[in-house]
Amino acid sequence: MTQSACFEDLAVGQTASLGKTITEADILLYSAVSTDTNPVHINEEAARASLFGERIAHGMLSAGLISAVLGTRLPGPGTIYMGQTLRFRAPVKIGATVVATVEVTALNAEKRRATLKTTCTVGEEVVIDGEALVQVPARG
Amino acid sequence: MTQSACFEDLAVGQTASLGKTITEADILLYSAVSTDTNPVHINEEAARASLFGERIAHGMLSAGLISAVLGTRLPGPGTIYMGQTLRFRAPVKIGATVVATVEVTALNAEKRRATLKTTCTVGEEVVIDGEALVQVPARG
Amino acid sequence: MTQSACFEDLAVGQTASLGKTITEADILLYSAVSTDTNPVHINEEAARASLFGERIAHGMLSAGLISAVLGTRLPGPGTIYMGQTLRFRAPVKIGATVVATVEVTALNAEKRRATLKTTCTVGEEVVIDGEALVQVPARG
Amino acid sequence: MTQSACFEDLAVGQTASLGKTITEADILLYSAVSTDTNPVHINEEAARASLFGERIAHGMLSAGLISAVLGTRLPGPGTIYMGQTLRFRAPVKIGATVVATVEVTALNAEKRRATLKTTCTVGEEVVIDGEALVQVPARG
Repeated sequence: MTQSACFEDLAVGQTASLGKTITEADILLYSAVSTDTNPVHINEEAARASLFGERIAHGMLSAGLISAVLGTRLPGPGTIYMGQTLRFRAPVKIGATVVATVEVTALNAEKRRATLKTTCTVGEEVVIDGEALVQVPARG
Repeated sequence: MTQSACFEDLAVGQTASLGKTITEADILLYSAVSTDTNPVHINEEAARASLFGERIAHGMLSAGLISAVLGTRLPGPGTIYMGQTLRFRAPVKIGATVVATVEVTALNAEKRRATLKTTCTVGEEVVIDGEALVQVPARG
Repeated sequence: MTQSACFEDLAVGQTASLGKTITEADILLYSAVSTDTNPVHINEEAARASLFGERIAHGMLSAGLISAVLGTRLPGPGTIYMGQTLRFRAPVKIGATVVATVEVTALNAEKRRATLKTTCTVGEEVVIDGEALVQVPARG
Repeated sequence: MTQSACFEDLAVGQTASLGKTITEADILLYSAVSTDTNPVHINEEAARASLFGERIAHGMLSAGLISAVLGTRLPGPGTIYMGQTLRFRAPVKIGATVVATVEVTALNAEKRRATLKTTCTVGEEVVIDGEALVQVPARG
């Protein structure tokens, strides 16, 4: 039903992206799933008094989009997520559209592993960067 | 209203934890928020045919509990999340209770930054490990 | 579009009920809306070690069904909710079907106010009882 | 893992608060959980024609914040919620930030029960007041 990722189809330089607008509903649902009820995410008055000046999205909420690209587009279904590094470089405001992009930067054929550069942007601004390590099944 | 974290209150060796049972509802809401609709999370038939043999939780869903400990307990509200490394070491089944634990391992007083060892466990098994880097406001 | 409640239609002894099965999804969504992430609701291991022996629903979650009967059935849309007393008499387990019942016990025609006995049950067991005070518009 | 409330740590006059901004998403999720689909909460046209002039939050939604303070801060995890009285004194508009505050007003050492004054405010305005009765475990 779903086409699965194959290590043999990967090449250094391949990229894939997806974008999502972060709404009030995302903040609320993510606070439930993560149990992260930090006031900067759910209390407008406290957030206004904070460094950020308004409510912002959970950093890990945006990071989840990286996982979504890896698991649904490149490499795609069947990918085993082994590791991720994340640098949170700028806050994401509610209503912002976050685009997550991954790019294959290295391949280890023996272990069928791929390293990907992972970047989340809002407009021109990088809000998260880092690197993912995945394992991808061999064909058939 | 909310007590904020202060760099001066941190000491190497401090730890904090929180736990959450990962339910069907978490999988559904997290797939909505992250757009990660990988079949291994939401399609029981495809998951049964996969390496995992059943549906599993998104790795990044469990990682969100680390962010929750950092933002609500140690260091707590006011913490600025700068970076996170994650190694996904074992899958999390639906119904499992994930406990996220953070431990202060290094402090940089000049930059008011703390490094914390971050671990997610299910029972005795480590499912995620890694390291967080945060910045914490100075007192008053 | 919606028929509104009228004080003149109320009589002592009238009753109305509604029931709802409390699922995992209710617990998760209510924890988001209320910010109540008490472990007894969301952490199966902690709940097992508690007095209750398993996760239970938030008491206020069940109490919300009382408000629903008042606002949608008796007296119905247009009702102004003025006050409520609640005694939490027994825990509600996940999967239980809670039935909220209201019964008009007193009417104050001058102020167009009604007092209602409010009860939530699971099977034969009363889990919440108390009293509601509402104001209801006069006809036309 | 979670520090539990102890009756011995309570003293008359202690207070705790938490705040939350009530968003569209809260209204939707709370209407789902409570089944309270009263038009004044979910139908902008009907709400405009009502006494309130616009959609308002469910009173019991704001009341849930009281339960959250009791269960997560004061007294905290382990608290058994025995009763609550609520007076709904003013409507809460969508977008308002509700702050729930509890204050210990009486202690019954023999039964390990505490009475707390409970207040929800929006800015300077009291929107709900009332009283909570809880039971708190003795230490160890």
